Amino acid sequence: MNRPKILIAGAGFGGLTAASALAHEPVEVVVLDRLNHHLFQPLLYQVATAALSPAQIAQPIRHILRHAKNITVAMAEIVGVEPASNRIITRDRSYPYDYLILATGSRHFYFGHPEWEPLAPGLKSIDDALEIRRRLLFAFEEAEKTDDPAIRAAALTFVVIGGGPTGVEMAGAIGEIARYTMVRDFRRIDPSQARIVLLEAAPRILPALAETLSAKASAKLRQLGVEVRTGTKVSNVRTDGVEIDEAFIPSRTVLWTAGNAASPLGKMLGTETDRVGRVWVSPDLTPPGRPNIFVIGDLANFSHQTGSPLPGVSPVAMQQARHAVRNILAKIDGRPTAPFHYFDKGTMATIGRRAAVADIRGLRFNGFLAWLAWLFVHLIFLVGFRNRVLVFLEWTWSYFNFYRGARLITGTPPHTQ
Amino acid sequence: MNRPKILIAGAGFGGLTAASALAHEPVEVVVLDRLNHHLFQPLLYQVATAALSPAQIAQPIRHILRHAKNITVAMAEIVGVEPASNRIITRDRSYPYDYLILATGSRHFYFGHPEWEPLAPGLKSIDDALEIRRRLLFAFEEAEKTDDPAIRAAALTFVVIGGGPTGVEMAGAIGEIARYTMVRDFRRIDPSQARIVLLEAAPRILPALAETLSAKASAKLRQLGVEVRTGTKVSNVRTDGVEIDEAFIPSRTVLWTAGNAASPLGKMLGTETDRVGRVWVSPDLTPPGRPNIFVIGDLANFSHQTGSPLPGVSPVAMQQARHAVRNILAKIDGRPTAPFHYFDKGTMATIGRRAAVADIRGLRFNGFLAWLAWLFVHLIFLVGFRNRVLVFLEWTWSYFNFYRGARLITGTPPHTQ
Repeated sequence: MNRPKILIAGAGFGGLTAASALAHEPVEVVVLDRLNHHLFQPLLYQVATAALSPAQIAQPIRHILRHAKNITVAMAEIVGVEPASNRIITRDRSYPYDYLILATGSRHFYFGHPEWEPLAPGLKSIDDALEIRRRLLFAFEEAEKTDDPAIRAAALTFVVIGGGPTGVEMAGAIGEIARYTMVRDFRRIDPSQARIVLLEAAPRILPALAETLSAKASAKLRQLGVEVRTGTKVSNVRTDGVEIDEAFIPSRTVLWTAGNAASPLGKMLGTETDRVGRVWVSPDLTPPGRPNIFVIGDLANFSHQTGSPLPGVSPVAMQQARHAVRNILAKIDGRPTAPFHYFDKGTMATIGRRAAVADIRGLRFNGFLAWLAWLFVHLIFLVGFRNRVLVFLEWTWSYFNFYRGARLITGTPPHTQ
Repeated sequence: MNRPKILIAGAGFGGLTAASALAHEPVEVVVLDRLNHHLFQPLLYQVATAALSPAQIAQPIRHILRHAKNITVAMAEIVGVEPASNRIITRDRSYPYDYLILATGSRHFYFGHPEWEPLAPGLKSIDDALEIRRRLLFAFEEAEKTDDPAIRAAALTFVVIGGGPTGVEMAGAIGEIARYTMVRDFRRIDPSQARIVLLEAAPRILPALAETLSAKASAKLRQLGVEVRTGTKVSNVRTDGVEIDEAFIPSRTVLWTAGNAASPLGKMLGTETDRVGRVWVSPDLTPPGRPNIFVIGDLANFSHQTGSPLPGVSPVAMQQARHAVRNILAKIDGRPTAPFHYFDKGTMATIGRRAAVADIRGLRFNGFLAWLAWLFVHLIFLVGFRNRVLVFLEWTWSYFNFYRGARLITGTPPHTQ
């Protein structure tokens, strides 16, 4: 008897959780991902800011799943979904499925300005993080070399667009690098004079958190020398800086954490998608009329619980993954599927070396205690014992030394672009 | 009174040693390097084979030299040397000097076949190592995906050209990855069936070591499944494999460790260079007629001691660096310079997880003891306490688990080239 074939597209938090839940079940599973590794994305900003190495927050997918003999992993870029024939198309070949879990997530979205992407890179993959690290570190090198005060000022100005958790974490980390890490290493510039600007179009940063926590986060960022400008819309990104409203900020380093668009695969299901390309799903996580396709994580618009889409965070993706697996196993057994309910455990964001804000089911706290909670949660969920030990050592070391171990400029230098 | 300006071009083992020797002396020092980091090159093959992360074997040059207030570091690509006007030209500006230490090393040399470079990358920089890691890991992914036995066999065939220490270390490490690290992670291929071929044109591998040690190294490589083919000349490198003499080895992954050519800056001194571009230097390390230029390391041809050029290894570069500094300080003080003498402490090469060969001033040994000596020497000389601790932990962990922590495929996948 042939066992049901389940195809998982994407090995982020959603896809990997689904695969783990299917390990050792009487089904055949194929996991497809464009890359060979699963990435612990909440710590990606630490790679971008030279605190951690890529290998400390990423592991080969096939290594994580090596004990599940019913799971095959293939590194392949998916170019098409054919719901009519139950097939996924990759560059090399096609894969048939009985059930599909679509978990291909999202990419940056530049609000109709794709030409901004090379000027203001976003932070989704290891390659993105290395590109940002290269630009950050190179900016200090440029400032040290030049004799022109205008070029120096632009090289020492860092603009982060988007005041969500990633933007806040990036701006805080850049503030710390400039104030503490770089300070003794240069002769001709004073890195602590760097200007860091965090731009947010909404009236406050961290809009998903309570207002009191937004205010605490802003205050902490200002302590680190970050200019927090809310209610500020970017009208243009240029090679030499950022235009906001009627003003211009000269800057050589602009980072983008403002918008996400869903993976283009969502549109290939032939069902309805929302304005950023997310697939509208029914309460059981299938799009209407596609009973053997489950869409989870950033790619799904699940609005049945609160009336608005669930946020694009890992707990949503992981809970949906487990739920999709339960529903698939129910269908295989001829049982009815159940509607999904998200259990919100809370949100946190860290700001620099020993401050954070957290909202755990209405319990709001900030400062050192919140930072310890952040540290604990992120270490616990980091895949792999070895990585946890090494990351803990890096953190301990840099906590006492303000040292950032991965300050390497690799790849093509930014000025050759 | 103006203090003498000393310019150091290149921050490899030679340049960095010279800079350290000049710290706190009454001179002004500028260190120029194309990259922002000093690289511990003897462990680069461990990055290429996914055992270590780049940041574990590299550190920012300006961070290493941060305590020496008389030293300025600039990240700049040198495009010219003008001995007549005592200037170094970079892309952005020029730097005057009173004394120049030229230590820009060597690059790969393809014996008049530059078209082989993209097909068979060499191993000199972090970027080279990441390119090789990408190709190695991607080859296993390709083999797992394909249904064509010929493509699978070519994907699982790895050819290393050049039987010096780097080639031996690379071939041994690939053998280990295939036999031990990858073995449980794949479903459709058996990575331990990988074919690894080490090609050497000379009659034996490791020609710098005694014949008995060459033989031991060959035997150990064969135990790891490596085909050692000596006396074999490569006649062509193609996208689909390597032509040797009258035969053809189909392979998707070819690595080059066979030849070096000196940095092109050597030719700009207007003095004589040898067949691979090395500068002939007098006994005091200056080229004839250039009394304020010292050429050291891989870029120098120093043949006064043994009648043939000293080998391109780090102890030569470091001893020459300290000697050049002594001679410069002597000149500044109006004292005579002294001729250089190389003190050869020995040579070693490691082959896989617990074997090595070593020749320490005629004392030849191999096996586990040689491997421990190799480990000890490499840890001791690794720059930075933090890196030593982390590298030791990685080694201990992988020694007991056969695990390689940095198995990430990043950057542009090889098939898009």
